[in-house]
Amino acid sequence: MNEIERNRYFLKDSIRKRIDFSKTPQSMGVAAPPFEKPWPEDAEMIDLPVLDWAEMVDVNIVSCIRNRKSRRSYTDRPLKLEELSFLLWATQGIRMVAGYSAFRTVPSAGCRHTFETYLAVFNVEGLEEGLYRYIPSVHRLLVEYLDDNLSQRIVEASFHQRFTGESAVTFIWTTIPYRMEWRYGLAAHRVILIDAGHVCQNLYLACEAIGAGTCAVAAYDQEYLDEVLGVDGVDEFTIYMAPVGKV
Amino acid sequence: MNEIERNRYFLKDSIRKRIDFSKTPQSMGVAAPPFEKPWPEDAEMIDLPVLDWAEMVDVNIVSCIRNRKSRRSYTDRPLKLEELSFLLWATQGIRMVAGYSAFRTVPSAGCRHTFETYLAVFNVEGLEEGLYRYIPSVHRLLVEYLDDNLSQRIVEASFHQRFTGESAVTFIWTTIPYRMEWRYGLAAHRVILIDAGHVCQNLYLACEAIGAGTCAVAAYDQEYLDEVLGVDGVDEFTIYMAPVGKV
Repeated sequence: MNEIERNRYFLKDSIRKRIDFSKTPQSMGVAAPPFEKPWPEDAEMIDLPVLDWAEMVDVNIVSCIRNRKSRRSYTDRPLKLEELSFLLWATQGIRMVAGYSAFRTVPSAGCRHTFETYLAVFNVEGLEEGLYRYIPSVHRLLVEYLDDNLSQRIVEASFHQRFTGESAVTFIWTTIPYRMEWRYGLAAHRVILIDAGHVCQNLYLACEAIGAGTCAVAAYDQEYLDEVLGVDGVDEFTIYMAPVGKV
Repeated sequence: MNEIERNRYFLKDSIRKRIDFSKTPQSMGVAAPPFEKPWPEDAEMIDLPVLDWAEMVDVNIVSCIRNRKSRRSYTDRPLKLEELSFLLWATQGIRMVAGYSAFRTVPSAGCRHTFETYLAVFNVEGLEEGLYRYIPSVHRLLVEYLDDNLSQRIVEASFHQRFTGESAVTFIWTTIPYRMEWRYGLAAHRVILIDAGHVCQNLYLACEAIGAGTCAVAAYDQEYLDEVLGVDGVDEFTIYMAPVGKV
């Protein structure tokens, strides 16, 4: 196979017929990995307001689908903290926990949900510029670090796509692939990418519903962005990003 | 690299730094491939009703996101043709054509949109059981073939996940990867999978809005399903599927 053929093979589900599913960690009795990344007990946490979203937002889904487009320029109006809270709920919020699975507002193959949500915050009411991580189980933000120059680093990490640092907040999703490999072995990877699309599409539509916009970015400097996030690039690494701002 | 490492590498954007983008077909001056698969002049085509979707459907996006879940059992009530038309618009409808690009209701990396939508129809008002293809440019259905036993073949092609043949209609998306490779070369493939997630998430939400449900299926017999669709498995092949029915 040449490289194009090998990559096309990866898009297919042919590999499933080669896999011995009795040998996956789950089938071998290995305990399930946690559904979210553990956090240090002394981490600085920030509460996110929880409103009746259906009351705060009352927009026909047809308008959201119809009006959605790539939005790369944003006004200076800050995002409100409750709006950010809504976007986090819409993209990775937990509906229900059952055993080792957390059912979320988006679907995931085998309910494995491999993502962590990092936020590069530039212009959100009540938050200082810096890097935060969403903790879905308690619907709070963990402060990774504050940094007045984060926007420059994010722009650099996206190969100078300036709008990634001119947003109110840039969502950066990482994956922890073992969560999916634990169940599916070598069939894990294609569905991780599909899952990233599920999440981001909810972000697009939820943005439209609050007078904001986004434009997903799949082109970024993998190694540098992983370093900015402080993830190891092996067991956790960046998979997709999406700047969000008021329009 | 072992196989897990190689698959994880595929999830990353590291490859971008290795690619000489001046050597992609687009950069070398090769004409853009068509944005949808051409169809024979004598093909049997079926009109899809076009309504004011915002009038037909008036559901808060918050309800759609909140109520969405995997729905694997469906009532016997048929899907109306205008409902199917709405779902097709929501997932792959064209908003605007500009040059060689067709902007759709969902985002796609570089607006390359590599998908074709096939429908295994079992219980839709006004349609006989059989395989159809959506033609977005004219918002019509092309009749691929009629077949009273299609549901059995679809169930077989999904490794006997029975609900894939007990739906009103099962969406089956193929990809024509060259549409993306033309612009991005070896960086094309991960974003094709992400795009599949964008599309399917709109299907989930649009289903919720019309009293229907879906549960996406990423586990299928690649070679057999490609054969059922009549695609070559090389330049076009199945990437994702989603049974839909009234709930």
